[in-house]
Amino acid sequence: MQEFNDLARVGALLQWDHETYMSHRGAEARARQQATMRVVRHERLVDDRLGEQLDELAESDLDLYRAAMVRNLRRERDRAARLPMEFVRRLALAESLGTSAWRIAREEDNFELYRPALEEIVAVKREEADLVGLDGERYDSLLDEYEPGMRVSRLEPLLGDLRRDLGELLGAIVSSPRARQPAAEFIGRSFPDQVQWDFTVRLLADLGFDLEAGRQDRSAHPFSTTMALHDVRVTTRIHEHEPFDSIFSTIHECGHALYEQGFDPAWEGTPIAEAPSLGLHESQSRMWENIVGRSAPFWEHYCQPMREAFPDVLNGVTPEDLYREVNRVHPSLIRVDSDEVTYNLHILIRFELELALMREELEVVDLPAAWNDSYERTLGIRPPSDAQGVMQDIHWSSGSMGYFPTYTLGNLYSAILWDAYAAQDPQAASRIGAGDFAPLLSWLRKNVHRPGYLYLAEDLVRNVTGSGLTHEPFMRYLWAKYGPLYDISR
Amino acid sequence: MQEFNDLARVGALLQWDHETYMSHRGAEARARQQATMRVVRHERLVDDRLGEQLDELAESDLDLYRAAMVRNLRRERDRAARLPMEFVRRLALAESLGTSAWRIAREEDNFELYRPALEEIVAVKREEADLVGLDGERYDSLLDEYEPGMRVSRLEPLLGDLRRDLGELLGAIVSSPRARQPAAEFIGRSFPDQVQWDFTVRLLADLGFDLEAGRQDRSAHPFSTTMALHDVRVTTRIHEHEPFDSIFSTIHECGHALYEQGFDPAWEGTPIAEAPSLGLHESQSRMWENIVGRSAPFWEHYCQPMREAFPDVLNGVTPEDLYREVNRVHPSLIRVDSDEVTYNLHILIRFELELALMREELEVVDLPAAWNDSYERTLGIRPPSDAQGVMQDIHWSSGSMGYFPTYTLGNLYSAILWDAYAAQDPQAASRIGAGDFAPLLSWLRKNVHRPGYLYLAEDLVRNVTGSGLTHEPFMRYLWAKYGPLYDISR
Repeated sequence: MQEFNDLARVGALLQWDHETYMSHRGAEARARQQATMRVVRHERLVDDRLGEQLDELAESDLDLYRAAMVRNLRRERDRAARLPMEFVRRLALAESLGTSAWRIAREEDNFELYRPALEEIVAVKREEADLVGLDGERYDSLLDEYEPGMRVSRLEPLLGDLRRDLGELLGAIVSSPRARQPAAEFIGRSFPDQVQWDFTVRLLADLGFDLEAGRQDRSAHPFSTTMALHDVRVTTRIHEHEPFDSIFSTIHECGHALYEQGFDPAWEGTPIAEAPSLGLHESQSRMWENIVGRSAPFWEHYCQPMREAFPDVLNGVTPEDLYREVNRVHPSLIRVDSDEVTYNLHILIRFELELALMREELEVVDLPAAWNDSYERTLGIRPPSDAQGVMQDIHWSSGSMGYFPTYTLGNLYSAILWDAYAAQDPQAASRIGAGDFAPLLSWLRKNVHRPGYLYLAEDLVRNVTGSGLTHEPFMRYLWAKYGPLYDISR
Repeated sequence: MQEFNDLARVGALLQWDHETYMSHRGAEARARQQATMRVVRHERLVDDRLGEQLDELAESDLDLYRAAMVRNLRRERDRAARLPMEFVRRLALAESLGTSAWRIAREEDNFELYRPALEEIVAVKREEADLVGLDGERYDSLLDEYEPGMRVSRLEPLLGDLRRDLGELLGAIVSSPRARQPAAEFIGRSFPDQVQWDFTVRLLADLGFDLEAGRQDRSAHPFSTTMALHDVRVTTRIHEHEPFDSIFSTIHECGHALYEQGFDPAWEGTPIAEAPSLGLHESQSRMWENIVGRSAPFWEHYCQPMREAFPDVLNGVTPEDLYREVNRVHPSLIRVDSDEVTYNLHILIRFELELALMREELEVVDLPAAWNDSYERTLGIRPPSDAQGVMQDIHWSSGSMGYFPTYTLGNLYSAILWDAYAAQDPQAASRIGAGDFAPLLSWLRKNVHRPGYLYLAEDLVRNVTGSGLTHEPFMRYLWAKYGPLYDISR
């Protein structure tokens, strides 16, 4: 188990370096190194002796922890064992070519340069799903890699309800006179790079990230990754005129990183010292980013430090100004720039399209039009270009299909978990206003982080909160927040 | 071959990250990851199918390049095949524990804390040598890993002659009245960090390092490493009061890096796109650092830029001042701070001690006293502590025995290669004075870098220069330089 973990961590370092410090010209060799690491890990995972050992262990009398380790490793092995080595290589190649083609095509805003590579990706993902062959429909076999145990039959009605309720809320917001308020005065002014950087590092420390056991660097697209329990890394990016971009990307990645720093040290390197799903992982980043970081008490606390950090541009600004500014809702084209209300609609569009691709109800050649139609129908705006449309995300180009829904699951889980936390501490909100994040972190440590992957995500959440996966806590949270902000009610 | 290369490069990245950005607390997991990568590579290297393929290829009709690839890979495999997997793990463990113990013991200046770990290292290195079992004596089997083809029977007389001749030169220098000249006035003043950094980056670019295909970072101990032909990395360190430390460490690592950037792209990832020995690699760093970087013309060229970079502290300084300052000779305790004349005496002390350890004429318990005696005999100074004595270098603690002599071989080769270069270009020195390094780099590219590992180091040098390995060109170089500097003659 340690060895599988080591090999995965090494892959993470190759990726981290690629995104942070590597010279552009190192990319080709790096792709080869990544592929080699994948092949090495795959070979060991499908080794017959491992299968025999796991069979033996499954029949022996194991405690809760060891049984979960065996179950989790077997889950990964079973999946891998269904993919022939030749197929793994084809997949790695398709993904490598896919991201290269995507970068160029997006840069030149020319979908045709991307289409053949994406067609190959869709073809191999269909084949991968068929090879994995879980019960249910094809998409399930992809989804299950990121969200073990989740199925389309569960997800489709859940997300359908969410879509309906979000539509209702969004409709109320855009009809509100408040929606026409102009941006705050300070937007567009200059926020010096180094000051932004120092502010984000301060936030990391404030929220509880252990900077002795991790670090922050810069990258074009913020991410978090883990080399070891005591070596967890986040990245951010800084735009001179958009301080909230670095602030919220840092808080978001910090949420992921706090999870990674919180696994039980006794199980480091085993398959229970990890998250049970990407959705649950995202619940941590979203809770810190949105429920905490975009709350009124948070900005009551940080208004003063912000004014001290940027005295010229934030002269006279109030907590209320900042709170309103970081919670502006407006339908837009780009997922990563979207607000809490529309964010999940961006996800739902992608989920429906990739589901249609896997069901062969849609082909890649028709994807740009389907994308644009869906944006127009859902958000009322039609992308003027494929660069701002179907080519905005890297995910599909790198073979990540079935991944997007985990973002929305993260939002849903974050509201469920927050409710349970707030229920046992009536002072939850005021603590945030006092900059005291330790009680929340310690609750998450105990209830979410330490258990790691002992249970499937939903089972863990049900154990802790008594509630299974549902969209209602999230919708209640949104209404409670945006009702007053936009002077609307349900 | 590509796969072996990938796995080695991944190991290089793990090390690079360890030395540059990794949190201190990530060290334990990193050691495990390194060990896993080593095991993976070892397993593949000793795989029977590889042996059969290499046997087949050795008998087929291969061109010069492919024959060399097969030969080099077979050399590595033959060595690996003699080490059982259990032994490889023991070695990795001993090295990992060794460097940890060394760090603590050096910090606390307490050899006893290091002794047991070093005893285990000496034991495993003796066993490794016996397992590898090359012709000749035990030390040969260690030496051959770093300097393929080199043997003690060759090295001992060569280094004996060198020791004698260096002793003569050093004696003349220390007796010279010039040896009592005080340090330049500017020594000890403040040279701002960022200005030093920018100056070293400028030097990299000036000397021909392709900053689009590599980068410089900071680390406690400067080194160079390679992730790919187009991703070569150097590090430096900056001390506010010692500008020449960063300058010469950058030039030294740049010499290594120019070599790594200079292999034939057609053979990237194969065992001929690498140096045939550490000694030849070191010849490149030493040539740029000393023969070029510590020459009078070099400082004629860089005096003005230095004065512009550090106007306050270098006001009125002349090229002659700088040239003299960077070429001060004085017997000292610490190898890495030593000058060109005494440097190899530091190496000879280590060579003799590790030879005695392998011959079982010396045991670890007696090593500190033997070290101190040897320093007193050779350099006339006795270390006041083991931290400044036997514990100053990391090498032994990480299992590198038989490695030190390659530093001296690098110096000897650098003089031989420079002579051949200068012989075909009478303007060689004046080009350096004009800051024109391209002709030297292009000569090295053609004659040393491009051929890679087609031949053993000495064969390559003989092909290019007509001269085998001898210490005379190096001694001639030293006398030609230090004679005038110290007003002495042979």
